[in-house]
Amino acid sequence: MNRYSKEQLEALTKSLSQAAGMSADDAHLFAEALVDADIHGVSTHGLSRLAIYLRRMELGLIDPKATLHVERQRAATLALDAANGVGHVQAVKALDMLIPMAKHNGIASATIRNSQHFGALSYYCNRAAAHDCILIATTNCEPAMSPTGGSDASFGTNPIAASFPTGKGFPIKIDLSTSAIARGNIIAASKKNQPIPLGWALDPGGEPTTDAQEALLGTVLTMAGHKGYALALMVEVLSGVLSGSAIGSEIGSMYKNLDRKQDVGHFFCLLDIDAFMDRDEFIRRIDSTIDTLKAGRKLSGVDEILVPGERSARKAAENTRLGIPIGPEVLKELEDWCSRLNVTFTLNQEQVTN
Amino acid sequence: MNRYSKEQLEALTKSLSQAAGMSADDAHLFAEALVDADIHGVSTHGLSRLAIYLRRMELGLIDPKATLHVERQRAATLALDAANGVGHVQAVKALDMLIPMAKHNGIASATIRNSQHFGALSYYCNRAAAHDCILIATTNCEPAMSPTGGSDASFGTNPIAASFPTGKGFPIKIDLSTSAIARGNIIAASKKNQPIPLGWALDPGGEPTTDAQEALLGTVLTMAGHKGYALALMVEVLSGVLSGSAIGSEIGSMYKNLDRKQDVGHFFCLLDIDAFMDRDEFIRRIDSTIDTLKAGRKLSGVDEILVPGERSARKAAENTRLGIPIGPEVLKELEDWCSRLNVTFTLNQEQVTN
Repeated sequence: MNRYSKEQLEALTKSLSQAAGMSADDAHLFAEALVDADIHGVSTHGLSRLAIYLRRMELGLIDPKATLHVERQRAATLALDAANGVGHVQAVKALDMLIPMAKHNGIASATIRNSQHFGALSYYCNRAAAHDCILIATTNCEPAMSPTGGSDASFGTNPIAASFPTGKGFPIKIDLSTSAIARGNIIAASKKNQPIPLGWALDPGGEPTTDAQEALLGTVLTMAGHKGYALALMVEVLSGVLSGSAIGSEIGSMYKNLDRKQDVGHFFCLLDIDAFMDRDEFIRRIDSTIDTLKAGRKLSGVDEILVPGERSARKAAENTRLGIPIGPEVLKELEDWCSRLNVTFTLNQEQVTN
Repeated sequence: MNRYSKEQLEALTKSLSQAAGMSADDAHLFAEALVDADIHGVSTHGLSRLAIYLRRMELGLIDPKATLHVERQRAATLALDAANGVGHVQAVKALDMLIPMAKHNGIASATIRNSQHFGALSYYCNRAAAHDCILIATTNCEPAMSPTGGSDASFGTNPIAASFPTGKGFPIKIDLSTSAIARGNIIAASKKNQPIPLGWALDPGGEPTTDAQEALLGTVLTMAGHKGYALALMVEVLSGVLSGSAIGSEIGSMYKNLDRKQDVGHFFCLLDIDAFMDRDEFIRRIDSTIDTLKAGRKLSGVDEILVPGERSARKAAENTRLGIPIGPEVLKELEDWCSRLNVTFTLNQEQVTN
């Protein structure tokens, strides 16, 4: 796979986004967020999504020039309307508004309605951690998952995320969907014609299935049964019901519904660590927690106990050193969009051993 | 099983707690919290725990007269020291401080250190819902659970809870431990000499086990593998690291460590719904979400799709009508403590068909 520098990938993303109608500043924020996912090895939420965002802008289903509106405000809360703008940009702007509010009041929170799929939640959480804050973030997303006892696609895979600053050179990064499995694993099994375990998905008739093809036409199941259902509903109420966005099955599909907006809702809750404890004491305590976990007794066959975020930090270090891998399908999409938007394709492969 | 009225059970609990040194007001708060668990069918967190709380007060391991200290305060946050008081009482007092802060600023949050096992999180969440607020609550607890790849008891079963007001006569109530299974299920299997499924627990040597007896000597596993590990760690950082309480394996066991305090930490985040959306619109939207879920297609063999909190609300209605069932072992403990503390045993069984 070809590898490219962060700067090259951000520059091309920025050029394409500006050509699609975004301002230079917004295009820059968008490029940083997208490329960050590829840096951390989350290629499903990085440049592989740029084509569909550009397509939706072209179709008028995302407004590249939207401004973020404050609909309600208290000293420590914001109810925001993303005005159908690019989700990543509106979310970064929301976070930038929340940081001084949290630094002043100890905590601040925002709902964001009328938004889009906005990539990896951990991007925003890690940004907050760099300010010695803890961001708890949730979002609803397009329908894919059934409640306990049901077989409708009543929810998205409704993720929950939070990052915590440490003295270890990387934040503890928690970012998980509430589904039993990422849909990507079912797609992979389907491509290889392999069965999937019971408990991952239902077929279109609402019956449990081990057939990956059928599963892709049906719904995924929640993680840990009714516990995942409860957490998915918690995410839906915080991100969807409370924000004023579409709820559950009403949310537009990014790829399938090319005739209407998504209307996704996000929820941010930002804590200033210093409001609870001196920053240095917090770092000492979280580092000690990490040390204790990693020094613990291991299961046979396990080399190392990892803390959440550790693997992704290692991947980011590797990709920063070697260049960020971009697959041939994504490169082709980028080239096509360069032609379409009259942007020069500028990527040059890094001179690295892969 | 004998059934008793709420009033009778609260009165006896209050008398015993006062005899153990609590003020009348604190004993009243404690009694309400404990009996509420039994009303909702969560007998593991109700009067079945009163004996151990009284025992720990008698041993000087819980201070029945402790006052809640504010260690740090901002407009929307409190860092609290429970001063080793009764957890339920300190948590209700913390919530009562947070409600006006959230009503004013839109959100308010508290950490509480130096506390105890404080019963069912949903008790506090439901109280908040009655004020048209959303409480997200977490607590750490005594060590029982291993991280992914490890076999030490690095965490408690670290629960997460939140309740949401509805127009349906009960709040949506989410309250779940991050373990694969409640330890109670392993105890039940052990009593019946039945095996447990792989994936629930490790034996004392750190190997996966299906032997319930061995599992009780070992550790439980997280729900949904690494996702439960991540959530348990999130709970530990919010409730333990950030509060200044004991962390993970340092926490004292309620039953086993009768020589030291527990030093549990709690985390509360309280949102005022009206800061984000008119209360009536929120209720309309959450009720519509519930209606859609319940009207959805059902799996074969499923009669009804429930939302979290619905079953427990039905149980509470039944127990309010018929009286609250209290098992013979718990009755015996209550009688014993009445003798010990020179309190008249006042319970009279309700005249109901069970």
